[in-house]
Amino acid sequence: MESKDDEIFAENAKTEIPKDGSVFGFDSLHRLLQSSLSPQLFQEVSRLLLGLNCGRALDTIAIPEPAKSLSSKHDFDLQAFSFRAEKESLREPRIVRVGLIQNSIALPTTAPLLDQKRGIFQKLTPIIEAAGSSGVNILCLQEAWMMPFAFCTREKKWCEFSEPVDGESTQFLQDFARKYNMVIISPILERDEKHGEVIWNTAVIIGNHGNIIGKHRKNHIPRVGDFNESTYYMEGNTGHPVFETAFGKIAVNICYGRHHPLNWLAFGLNGAEIVFNPSATVGELSEPMWPIEARNAAIANSYFVCSINRVGTEIFPNPFTSGDGKPQHADFGHFYGSSYISSPDSSCTPSLSRRKDGLLISDMDLNLCRQLKDKWGFRMTARYEIYADLLARYLKPDFEPQVISDPLLNKKTF
Amino acid sequence: MESKDDEIFAENAKTEIPKDGSVFGFDSLHRLLQSSLSPQLFQEVSRLLLGLNCGRALDTIAIPEPAKSLSSKHDFDLQAFSFRAEKESLREPRIVRVGLIQNSIALPTTAPLLDQKRGIFQKLTPIIEAAGSSGVNILCLQEAWMMPFAFCTREKKWCEFSEPVDGESTQFLQDFARKYNMVIISPILERDEKHGEVIWNTAVIIGNHGNIIGKHRKNHIPRVGDFNESTYYMEGNTGHPVFETAFGKIAVNICYGRHHPLNWLAFGLNGAEIVFNPSATVGELSEPMWPIEARNAAIANSYFVCSINRVGTEIFPNPFTSGDGKPQHADFGHFYGSSYISSPDSSCTPSLSRRKDGLLISDMDLNLCRQLKDKWGFRMTARYEIYADLLARYLKPDFEPQVISDPLLNKKTF
Repeated sequence: MESKDDEIFAENAKTEIPKDGSVFGFDSLHRLLQSSLSPQLFQEVSRLLLGLNCGRALDTIAIPEPAKSLSSKHDFDLQAFSFRAEKESLREPRIVRVGLIQNSIALPTTAPLLDQKRGIFQKLTPIIEAAGSSGVNILCLQEAWMMPFAFCTREKKWCEFSEPVDGESTQFLQDFARKYNMVIISPILERDEKHGEVIWNTAVIIGNHGNIIGKHRKNHIPRVGDFNESTYYMEGNTGHPVFETAFGKIAVNICYGRHHPLNWLAFGLNGAEIVFNPSATVGELSEPMWPIEARNAAIANSYFVCSINRVGTEIFPNPFTSGDGKPQHADFGHFYGSSYISSPDSSCTPSLSRRKDGLLISDMDLNLCRQLKDKWGFRMTARYEIYADLLARYLKPDFEPQVISDPLLNKKTF
Repeated sequence: MESKDDEIFAENAKTEIPKDGSVFGFDSLHRLLQSSLSPQLFQEVSRLLLGLNCGRALDTIAIPEPAKSLSSKHDFDLQAFSFRAEKESLREPRIVRVGLIQNSIALPTTAPLLDQKRGIFQKLTPIIEAAGSSGVNILCLQEAWMMPFAFCTREKKWCEFSEPVDGESTQFLQDFARKYNMVIISPILERDEKHGEVIWNTAVIIGNHGNIIGKHRKNHIPRVGDFNESTYYMEGNTGHPVFETAFGKIAVNICYGRHHPLNWLAFGLNGAEIVFNPSATVGELSEPMWPIEARNAAIANSYFVCSINRVGTEIFPNPFTSGDGKPQHADFGHFYGSSYISSPDSSCTPSLSRRKDGLLISDMDLNLCRQLKDKWGFRMTARYEIYADLLARYLKPDFEPQVISDPLLNKKTF
């Protein structure tokens, strides 16, 4: 054991260790365990950690040569898996190939804004090409992919990055959608020109013919840590739309909305089969929650969840403070990547790298969603009438919680 | 590596390996990793798996000698931890010591029913004494603790185990509640004598003076696998009560209710600070979900969750079938124990044994709940009005989901 660990230590010492809160700056928990445990032990640990029950290992997909070569030339992580479903008698399998992209920014935040945006376009091109040439049907990018995640600064100059739904970033992706017959989800900072030029955090849904199917605006805006997004844009006004595409019914739960079980539920009630969760979140705040919330949503709502987090550390020109007496600093913390996919059967893929750009590909048979609904019956046993009533009462200012007090509580301990 | 694994293999080969779906019949994931990884690697893996962020290790509590000695004499797993909270300026800490008990049945299911029940009383006595003598304030037993989990059989003779809320099992526990000034949650099979002798799955809340504070009946009844509970009792009619005890506001989400995020939410809206989840669930069906749902509930609702699962394999006199062409069998599968506690800060304790009876003790400062509410603001950013409206519409038979179809969807792929 010791010598093995020494090797891992040495290997990590060779590489640059980012400021990401980890002991080693390791690449992914999965790879860390795989390199440290025997195959048998690793199989058993995977059974519990990835939910691969009943000895069913997650299949890997052979990655086409062009994608492999792009991945090694442009140094991005590339992994591909496949979720199984039962064969049905009355429906054909509905296998969809999904791709998720996580990436760091391309140029320093001090570069001219247009160069920064074009730099990201250029950086993303080979990764999108790799997805397209691998036959990906639905591709999703990370939250506000066309800019640094500058909302920590509270500086309004970054609003310049915002674009209308049919703006430059959408046009850039429409070409790929057409070229590869691929649905693309493009989460941008939106400028709503028809409504007083206000700003939204929006996902644009581009159809596989390059057309714009629609948009969804982020429903829940954080008020935590340096996530000062609430000073830039307001809660979305687009409800919980499900987009019926050529490759299944999809929805987008943007970033902080993943902390809200009701948000996940609403996409499910509207019929989503895959919910994408493009995010931007940092290690110290949320890393232990990252493997929990998406998987819970997939289980509870009988759909696939595709979680994407940006990667890297972004340094801004002007330092800012975070309160609590901490020294001023110019970065938001380490975006830990770790994009992964959760299945309604409670299994999940390993995560992409915590440090590198990456493309995660997975096949999924959408028939699995209904199979899990039939198996567990969560929708049928949910008793929604009780909760509709409770929420309606809760909204009233004079709501009284249902509390039964111990009558012998003469002397309160607290 | 090889020699270390060989040792683990050899160690496991010495012990009886239960039919629990695991490669080794290992005791707990935590202990498996602890014995296989170097201390540094184990620390990093724990940071992610147990949510111990910011280098904050979970404290262990020194277990009092009488409890230790009971544990070794009666061969039950005994672990004790402590969750930290920030010190506040305007409130004193509100530290509560919680105990969870998981146990196998005492006698074969062929023994006379009264002997079976008394056998469990006798088996539980030293474990409850260990909790009491360790200063536990709130103790919770597993679901239907006073009987085998016989609902897989569909045989109605097991209903004989049912008792009124103030029956023999409650009386047994009331003595301990008084002796140790301890709130006890007692999940039983209830016979409602005043309403036509119907059966419920009920948790009785016994106050620290031995009084009965109230009861809660299981809200969501499974229809999955051999969980044939819906042929024994119906969905509960007690709402989502929160019990104000001498040691904080508590609620009980019984077993299958943990799959329903709305059920968790309702206890939160009513003000729960600790929600107990007494369960009975088996490996092949649910083990990968077990570490996910409770932790998600704790995070989403800013309260502590205490998860209890019974342990062991219970063999019934008459074999039964599970469909799908499987051979008839006489057991429900392996109840994998693994009781654990989740904190609203997304951390959790290691789990109790997958194979042995156990008592898990943890201190928790209830102030942490409000601290996390203030930090993350989930309650304030939840937009309940949208969801109250959606659920009210969803309940209508003519509900139309919010779907935006691609207008170019002339040829459906599916």
